[in-house]
Amino acid sequence: MAIEINKEFIEQIEILIKNQDDTAILKLLDDEHHADIAEILDLLNLDEATYIIKLLDSEKTAEILMEIDEDTREKVLKKLSAKEIAEELEELDTDDAADIIAELPEHRQQRVIAHIEDEEHVADIKELLTYDDDTAGSIMAKELVKVNENWTIPRCVKEMRAQAEEVTRVHSIYVINDEEQLIGRLSLKDLLIAPARGNISKIVRPKVDSVNVNENVEEVAKIMQKYDLEAIPVVDDNMILLGRITIDDIVDVIKEEAEKDYQMAAGLTEDVEADDSIFELVKGRLPWLILGLLGSLGAVTIMQNFQGLMSNPEDRALFFFTPLIAAVAGNVGVQSSAIIVQGLANDIIKGSFLKRMIKEISISVINGLILSFIIIAFGVVAQYKLIFTIAVSISLISVIIIASLIGTFVPLILDKRGIDPALATGPFITTSNDIFGILIYFMIAKLILGI
Amino acid sequence: MAIEINKEFIEQIEILIKNQDDTAILKLLDDEHHADIAEILDLLNLDEATYIIKLLDSEKTAEILMEIDEDTREKVLKKLSAKEIAEELEELDTDDAADIIAELPEHRQQRVIAHIEDEEHVADIKELLTYDDDTAGSIMAKELVKVNENWTIPRCVKEMRAQAEEVTRVHSIYVINDEEQLIGRLSLKDLLIAPARGNISKIVRPKVDSVNVNENVEEVAKIMQKYDLEAIPVVDDNMILLGRITIDDIVDVIKEEAEKDYQMAAGLTEDVEADDSIFELVKGRLPWLILGLLGSLGAVTIMQNFQGLMSNPEDRALFFFTPLIAAVAGNVGVQSSAIIVQGLANDIIKGSFLKRMIKEISISVINGLILSFIIIAFGVVAQYKLIFTIAVSISLISVIIIASLIGTFVPLILDKRGIDPALATGPFITTSNDIFGILIYFMIAKLILGI
Repeated sequence: MAIEINKEFIEQIEILIKNQDDTAILKLLDDEHHADIAEILDLLNLDEATYIIKLLDSEKTAEILMEIDEDTREKVLKKLSAKEIAEELEELDTDDAADIIAELPEHRQQRVIAHIEDEEHVADIKELLTYDDDTAGSIMAKELVKVNENWTIPRCVKEMRAQAEEVTRVHSIYVINDEEQLIGRLSLKDLLIAPARGNISKIVRPKVDSVNVNENVEEVAKIMQKYDLEAIPVVDDNMILLGRITIDDIVDVIKEEAEKDYQMAAGLTEDVEADDSIFELVKGRLPWLILGLLGSLGAVTIMQNFQGLMSNPEDRALFFFTPLIAAVAGNVGVQSSAIIVQGLANDIIKGSFLKRMIKEISISVINGLILSFIIIAFGVVAQYKLIFTIAVSISLISVIIIASLIGTFVPLILDKRGIDPALATGPFITTSNDIFGILIYFMIAKLILGI
Repeated sequence: MAIEINKEFIEQIEILIKNQDDTAILKLLDDEHHADIAEILDLLNLDEATYIIKLLDSEKTAEILMEIDEDTREKVLKKLSAKEIAEELEELDTDDAADIIAELPEHRQQRVIAHIEDEEHVADIKELLTYDDDTAGSIMAKELVKVNENWTIPRCVKEMRAQAEEVTRVHSIYVINDEEQLIGRLSLKDLLIAPARGNISKIVRPKVDSVNVNENVEEVAKIMQKYDLEAIPVVDDNMILLGRITIDDIVDVIKEEAEKDYQMAAGLTEDVEADDSIFELVKGRLPWLILGLLGSLGAVTIMQNFQGLMSNPEDRALFFFTPLIAAVAGNVGVQSSAIIVQGLANDIIKGSFLKRMIKEISISVINGLILSFIIIAFGVVAQYKLIFTIAVSISLISVIIIASLIGTFVPLILDKRGIDPALATGPFITTSNDIFGILIYFMIAKLILGI
């Protein structure tokens, strides 16, 4: 927060790079936080960014690499040698180092790992790379502070001091037995307040939350939020302590999850961003547009089948209301599904299917009646026959009921089958509701108008 | 995670409450985490939940109250006397206590505060209640550990031990001068590794991030995420240390923000949840439905004006495509606005308006051409004249361009004016795109078909 990153500042840096004035660049960036430097690099072009990465200390650049935009990182890494990358990785915690290696093309991974000198670091990174995506193992770090249950308090303090040098942030000290099994924890506060001598068993807290290494990351996020934890130890099936997950990694999981749901609801494939290339943006948007178009062509076909109604000037007006029917059906469907998707994410979907169905129908009828009132009022002003707007209204209420039931139960069913319910939001539900909506609309309206 | 909260367990509790078997209830719940008990209470009815709150120790129930559903909490608090609530608040950190008081009706607030015995706690809570919603002050806690820059290390350790008793979690020890101004920080690790004697000035880290008490909470969330902070001190304009914000509060801010955007995109007013009453759910959904309906009635009116086209059997088919035009326009608009809203939230919207406009138009033309190809193929199968489907396609491309420009620039303009850009997503953009889309469609199609 010390510097303001604005156009002038970026221009200043660009000139310094052009003049290869390394001393001035180092002076300018020396005191800056790595997150600020990352922000600066994101605004420079690739050659300039690489120049700065090569210029700065690897202690600093390692952290910077973790913060810059993923696309930029990929390009910068291409410009660095395997040895240079290895030097960066030596500085990083195992979880970050494993993330960066996973981003490299396979043929480079081995060469980079071969250049890392610290053998324990290599073993840890290799272990982390074996865990499946989206498991606790894939986001945990091997760095943690652990003490043996049989140690004395002074020995603990001493060992802890040595270990803490390696660990960026110490939340808890984990207590293990001789089999390396997690049996309790200590807080730093406990240790500070503890008596000067004696065995640590006196101050160990035997209750310690932990997660299995194969637990899904979203589940880990839920547990850490529920119990307000800042770090959680990760164990294997035999309770052997393997690593720990910290809250900052979980913040990323929560944000990604929310963004994923939002993008699905908006009809975007994942990971599309405003600053992506035109090609990537087309790729991110086209699939849902095509799906929507195919659905709408279904609706076109349905209307073709009802085109006989156009011969009668009075019935023609039914066609004016088709976008309205489709729009309301779409909106209702998205609302219903969004409520369910959010409810599932927060674990608040309770009660039976039947109860929920009755609730949805009640809401639909109330909303439908109010909307119908507006349509009938519009009909009076626009001089439609009353029976006509009543027919439109009754169809609309039926469409709303069906759309809200589809919107409610499709995500519930997907969830039961282990499919991400968020799939059911956005263009998918809008499109199916378009087709059903228009079909039901014409069928009911015909029935009522006796056509 | 010790117990499994299932139907059987809840029934067991219900029977124990019915029999007023307090000993058995206490034994059952004694070892449970407050977050688990909160989950249980959310599944009981109001009288049962209140029974348990009154039965358990206020040390435990205070934390439980913070975890249960807001609606349940409101009802439970109604059943407690001012004195009982005051006892709960004594156990809570100032930020949580202030949140609960703010939820009470005004006439109860004073009475509850009058019953709190700890005067410093009362003063802190009263101070917190003065800060505006959405400011750093409104989410900070007064509890923190601070030491004076002139103290010796042993005195720091001693004072810190005393203060730490009061503070749930110690992230940093803040260092202040005689004017109570924040001048640095110490980590617990520093203190544990520090030499046994000497002045703390030796080990103080003078660089400490802080936020102003009036800073917006979303901004605080961005800063804490950017710099990976687990706690941040809050200061006033004179750098006087007022409180601190911890990452768990920020996790809540991030989640709420994401949910708010999601709900707006789905056309829901804020805070609607699956388990709300029918009335609340109608209230949450109706406003956007009415807005959408009014927009669609605008589209109806436009089509009325083009009804002359229905006399010619060949031109009639134009009406079959109106829901398709409206759907594509809506989908494109939502995609564009969602990308911008998310980009703004992540601070990645860079470059000039003109560049962005050219990019959006390019994307629209590419997507439009591909969709047109599908429409023309459909036309061949469904035996439309080629000139007709070409006319529909050219109109569609124009509609896509306009819809994507509206979707891109409305949120950007709202954001520039300090209005939440997320307002521009969902039914709002869909509706305006419906109307524009259908108008442009008929105008261009008429022109091309020479009608």
